[in-house]
Amino acid sequence: MRRILLTMEYLGTAFSGYQVQSNAGTVQEAVEDAIFRAWGERVRITASGRTDAGVHALGQTAHFDTECSVPAERVCLALNRYLPEEVRIKSSREVPADFHARFGVKRKTYLYRMYRAAIPSPTRRDTHAQVPETLNVPAMREALPYLLGEHDFACFMAAGSEVKTTVRTIYAAQLAEEGEDELRFTVTGNGFLYNMVRIIVGTLLEIGRGRPASDMGEIIAGRDRAAAGATAPPQGLYLYKVEY
Amino acid sequence: MRRILLTMEYLGTAFSGYQVQSNAGTVQEAVEDAIFRAWGERVRITASGRTDAGVHALGQTAHFDTECSVPAERVCLALNRYLPEEVRIKSSREVPADFHARFGVKRKTYLYRMYRAAIPSPTRRDTHAQVPETLNVPAMREALPYLLGEHDFACFMAAGSEVKTTVRTIYAAQLAEEGEDELRFTVTGNGFLYNMVRIIVGTLLEIGRGRPASDMGEIIAGRDRAAAGATAPPQGLYLYKVEY
Repeated sequence: MRRILLTMEYLGTAFSGYQVQSNAGTVQEAVEDAIFRAWGERVRITASGRTDAGVHALGQTAHFDTECSVPAERVCLALNRYLPEEVRIKSSREVPADFHARFGVKRKTYLYRMYRAAIPSPTRRDTHAQVPETLNVPAMREALPYLLGEHDFACFMAAGSEVKTTVRTIYAAQLAEEGEDELRFTVTGNGFLYNMVRIIVGTLLEIGRGRPASDMGEIIAGRDRAAAGATAPPQGLYLYKVEY
Repeated sequence: MRRILLTMEYLGTAFSGYQVQSNAGTVQEAVEDAIFRAWGERVRITASGRTDAGVHALGQTAHFDTECSVPAERVCLALNRYLPEEVRIKSSREVPADFHARFGVKRKTYLYRMYRAAIPSPTRRDTHAQVPETLNVPAMREALPYLLGEHDFACFMAAGSEVKTTVRTIYAAQLAEEGEDELRFTVTGNGFLYNMVRIIVGTLLEIGRGRPASDMGEIIAGRDRAAAGATAPPQGLYLYKVEY
C-alpha cells in the first residue's frame, strides 16, 4: 500500500464544489471516478480542504492510498486520461504513510482576481469577480497590514460555521494591479475559516469604495461578522498553493 | 434614421462564430435579437468582419441603422439588458450615415494568448491556446520584423479562401511574456486574410520549437501556404481593437 499526493488544477465553474454531495458533480467524484477507470480501484481521496461551488484551484492537493502498480510520478498521466478537461492533475508523488493532505497543511495561499470595468466582461465571466465601481486602491493597500499576524478572525467567518477556534495566522497579503483593469489579491495563512478570503475581499472592496482603511483593524478586533463586508463572489477565487 | 456604431466584447466559446448561419447561435443573431427585444425593430448589423467559432472579441465593432428614439450613448445599456452574458456592448455612439463598420476599417489589432505548461490548464481552457513544448522565445521575437510592412501574405491564408488581393500591411507585431507561463502575441494591420493571425502564430510556434527564425522571411516570399505552420487553435485569439 502506498500513499500518493496529487496536485491539481480545476475550473470551479464546471462543478458544484469540491466535496461529494448528492446529485451534483464534484471534483472529488471526478478524481475518484478517474482512479476507478484507470485501474479499477475504489478509493476515497482526502483534499487539503474544500472549495465552494464556482471556486477554482491552481494548486489543490489531495492524498489517497492505493495498491496499484503505476509509478507515483506517472499517476497524474494515468488519471488525466480519464478526467473531464475541467480538472487536471499537475503532478503526483509518493508520500509517507503518515502524511495527511489536510492535517499536515502548513500554509495555504489564495488568489482573488477582480476585473474593473463599468460593463461586465464576457471573456472574464468565470475567472474574475467583476467590479464596476472606481476603487481607491491605495486605501485598500493601507488596510492590508491589519490582516497580518495571529488574530481571532471570527469577523470573517460565514455565519453558521462550526470550528474549534477562529484564530488564524496570516503571513502575507498583497494587492497587485495587473494592467489597467485587473486587481489581484493574494493572501497566505496557516489556515482559513469558511468563506474567509471572500469576506476579506468584500471588506477590502468596501474600503476601496470609501470606507476608512482603519476600519479593517476595528472589524477584526470586534469579531462581528456583521461589521465586515459582503461575501465576494466565488468565480474570482483560486486556491493557489498548499504547503506542507 | 440614425446609424449607430457598437463596440462589443464576447466569449467566442459560447458561439459558433460571428456570422448568422443555419442551426447555430451566433453573436450577430444575439445582438439582432436583443435589438428586436429592446424596441421591436428588425435590423441587420454589419460588423468589421467575421470571427470564427471559438474566437473571442474584446473590441469588435458593428453598425446598424435605426429609427429608435434611444439616445445613441444609451443603446449599449438597452441592449445589454437583453443579451446573453457571453456578449456585452461596451459602448455605442452615433456615426455619419456614410460610416461603414467594415469598409471604413483603417487598422485592426489582434491578440493571441498562449499558456505554456506541460499539462493543459483547465482554468485557461477557453481563453488561451495551450503550448506544452519549451519555446525559444528570443527566436520567435527575431522572426517578427519579417512580418512588418506591406507584403503579399498568401502564405498565411487558409486554403480555399477567395479575396481580390492577398497584399496586406502589418504595422506592429510583438510578443510579450506575462508572468512565467503566459505569452501574448499582438499584431496590428490594415486588414487580415482568413485565418491569417492563427497561421502566423502556428508559424511562430514552429520557430519557437527549433525552425530557423529567418524562415519567416522565406515563407512570406514563397507565398505557399504549405510552407507556413499549422493553424493555431481559435480559443487563444481575440479581436482586440478596430480603428477607423
